[in-house]
Amino acid sequence: MKELKERIQRDAKVIGDTILKVDSFLNHQIDPQLMQKAAREFVQRFSDAPIDKILTIEASGIAVAILTGLELNKPVVFAKKAKPSTMPAGNYTARVKSFTKNTHHDVVISSEYIKQGDRVLIVDDFLAGGHAACGLIEMLEQAGAQLVGVAIVIEKGFQEGGALLRGRGIRVESLAIVDCLQGNTITFRE
Amino acid sequence: MKELKERIQRDAKVIGDTILKVDSFLNHQIDPQLMQKAAREFVQRFSDAPIDKILTIEASGIAVAILTGLELNKPVVFAKKAKPSTMPAGNYTARVKSFTKNTHHDVVISSEYIKQGDRVLIVDDFLAGGHAACGLIEMLEQAGAQLVGVAIVIEKGFQEGGALLRGRGIRVESLAIVDCLQGNTITFRE
Repeated sequence: MKELKERIQRDAKVIGDTILKVDSFLNHQIDPQLMQKAAREFVQRFSDAPIDKILTIEASGIAVAILTGLELNKPVVFAKKAKPSTMPAGNYTARVKSFTKNTHHDVVISSEYIKQGDRVLIVDDFLAGGHAACGLIEMLEQAGAQLVGVAIVIEKGFQEGGALLRGRGIRVESLAIVDCLQGNTITFRE
Repeated sequence: MKELKERIQRDAKVIGDTILKVDSFLNHQIDPQLMQKAAREFVQRFSDAPIDKILTIEASGIAVAILTGLELNKPVVFAKKAKPSTMPAGNYTARVKSFTKNTHHDVVISSEYIKQGDRVLIVDDFLAGGHAACGLIEMLEQAGAQLVGVAIVIEKGFQEGGALLRGRGIRVESLAIVDCLQGNTITFRE
């Protein structure tokens, strides 16, 4: 997505070889118009696939997920960070590692909102190590739901998440894949 | 907002005298079409007031905030839950109490995204004790920004947040004010 790549080149801050800071338009301050264009691009790329629900994880994925749900006129479910003690029995849970914070946390989805046979598109703002996506997929498996694919705004192609998911035969559509960060230069995958 | 009140009557679950569970359309599963209508209602109610930015707090407030920002073509900033150790100097911080979890946590906004003089509309899904709103307002004061008002999807009128804010002269627009929960009966303020 050309406009997104231009925005990354203009506004992202590169810190070291691994951190791409895009909190001016994606994950702290959010540009709703850009997110709407991203959502429309997701809808177009997955236009061949029937979708019943959008699934994301709190917090910053909610913005682009809700706009995707709006375009498709489908409900959006977000997995919640939760303490194990607050998880009612019968819900779906997974343990997710946070790359930036280097911690683990449990996430939960109520079994009321993802049902067996639901065709679910996972939407998120970032794909890096793939921990969040794998946690969401694990919960879809618990539900007996069907994964349509994974729609990502920015993929860090130099981390293992994208290869991991594609290696499992999962359809991943990323609007910008950053293959290299070096000395303030951002290189996208063609 | 009539459609919202009807949806609450139809789908909310009342637990005891204080808990209104609306996670089928507002804060776990989200209905994007209903949130768009709520956002449009906010824009209409605040149409007399110039707005530079929308401010909310993670996580479930992000959905209606992003749709409000989309309508107004203005950026959306969400305050992040953060550990004190991860807060860089110069940012705005506040300590917020969670009613449902009975815990305190620190929230942070980067000083890059709220500036002195910015006219800011706070948008959130719920107003109960007013802790989140007060934390956001405290951070706006730290920034020297101007609070336009507080736009809320569902206000629990039997808790003190709404009276607290209005008592300080703050403009609060709530699309549904629930005044009483008793034995599965939900009573709205006229």
